[in-house]
Amino acid sequence: MAGTDGTRGRAEAGAPGPAIILVDPQMGENIGTTARAMLNFGLTDLRLVRPRDGWPNPRAVSAASGADIVLDTVRLFDKTEDAAADCRRLYATTARPRDMVKPVLTPRGAAAEIRAAEAGGASVGILFGAERTGLNNDDVALADTVITAPLNPSFSSLNLAQAVLLVAAEYRQAADETPPRQLQTGDSPLADTKALVNLFEHLEGALDTADFFRVAEKRPSMVRALRNMLHRADLTEQEVRTWHGIITALSGMRKDGSARFERRD
Amino acid sequence: MAGTDGTRGRAEAGAPGPAIILVDPQMGENIGTTARAMLNFGLTDLRLVRPRDGWPNPRAVSAASGADIVLDTVRLFDKTEDAAADCRRLYATTARPRDMVKPVLTPRGAAAEIRAAEAGGASVGILFGAERTGLNNDDVALADTVITAPLNPSFSSLNLAQAVLLVAAEYRQAADETPPRQLQTGDSPLADTKALVNLFEHLEGALDTADFFRVAEKRPSMVRALRNMLHRADLTEQEVRTWHGIITALSGMRKDGSARFERRD
Repeated sequence: MAGTDGTRGRAEAGAPGPAIILVDPQMGENIGTTARAMLNFGLTDLRLVRPRDGWPNPRAVSAASGADIVLDTVRLFDKTEDAAADCRRLYATTARPRDMVKPVLTPRGAAAEIRAAEAGGASVGILFGAERTGLNNDDVALADTVITAPLNPSFSSLNLAQAVLLVAAEYRQAADETPPRQLQTGDSPLADTKALVNLFEHLEGALDTADFFRVAEKRPSMVRALRNMLHRADLTEQEVRTWHGIITALSGMRKDGSARFERRD
Repeated sequence: MAGTDGTRGRAEAGAPGPAIILVDPQMGENIGTTARAMLNFGLTDLRLVRPRDGWPNPRAVSAASGADIVLDTVRLFDKTEDAAADCRRLYATTARPRDMVKPVLTPRGAAAEIRAAEAGGASVGILFGAERTGLNNDDVALADTVITAPLNPSFSSLNLAQAVLLVAAEYRQAADETPPRQLQTGDSPLADTKALVNLFEHLEGALDTADFFRVAEKRPSMVRALRNMLHRADLTEQEVRTWHGIITALSGMRKDGSARFERRD
């Protein structure tokens, strides 16, 4: 997750994704970290409305950590409505608006809608307000829909780039097919049942020899518990070979007690 | 989303959530923004292993933007295994490990597992490596499971606090019941069918008077289209009253053509 990659990331082919529109952004650092967060999730269309410190801004460049493709194509606007002119769906990120009747979506709900809108050919924009004040009411009213993240209600002030990251991450995941859990076994495939049973029998035979199962009636339940434990490890073929070696080495020491202590030091 | 809240956020009651363990963090700013991101999602257990610039760190305090409850309870450790000693499930966030056979989860998959583990009484820790280098192999091997976020493969270097935010946001959402889409109508409830039909008939009557439906055969389909359009707006009772007023005002002007121009100025 903190891994780096040699290349300096062109966005992937395909849809450009929603435009990220920062209205009255104050700090160049936040514009840079926004660009980095966008590119982390494959977004490249960044638009700025009245950036306080002008543009270009060297602080943004250093904070972007190489997301140059986003900064190089930034577009500047004087008015929010101009920045969003081509957007057929426009979302406003804000705390829940108390005085406006507007649909309120979670970032996850919005991501699904945005993907559907894009699939239907509609370009999408997402408005983010200034660090201190957020979007003003007129900008919220310009949007058709509000996005509000479910935050800790007693500490809900989110950094600008973090807000962009949340939305961008959900947008990416809405089309991501990475399984929620997977085991990569590299060059060695998972051991098959035959290989596992061979291992189990090797271990159980060695334990019989060592008189590990002292109470005969308990042997079957202990064997099942051992097999379950080893099953849970999802052993690869290579690991099964390693375990055969371990059992042989340990049972060799068992038989020849002296070796066990000699190697201890 | 960028909204602020007067209070300076104690975490909510209930489970403390997973421990966030930063190993060899370099920049105080990143420790501070990590604390802020944690508290945004209700996490408060932050542990530091060998922070480069020592602890406490004033840069962390200013970057935390008020997440003092997290910084005030930070615990310091010399070794990763000590920081994680009480964790019964330990996750390592890293790019996919190529040379280790380990289950790899998405942040979302991990969030579901962590919630389940906590429900079973197991304390959970999540390791994050240094900004430049990530976790070393020994620290990854200390964990039972890897978390890897699905990022743009050509720009996958994620800021430390952003990585924490991704995991914390998924953890919170795994137990969040905010509907993905909702319409809050404030003091005025949604109009009921009777109120809507009254409005439709008011509009259609006014349009009949104004000779808007010129071709009689087309009237039924045009009426259905108008009703569908107004239905999509999900009008509240208050808004229905407003529309009655609009129709009356406009049709009044229609009937008395002069008024229309007089008011124009």
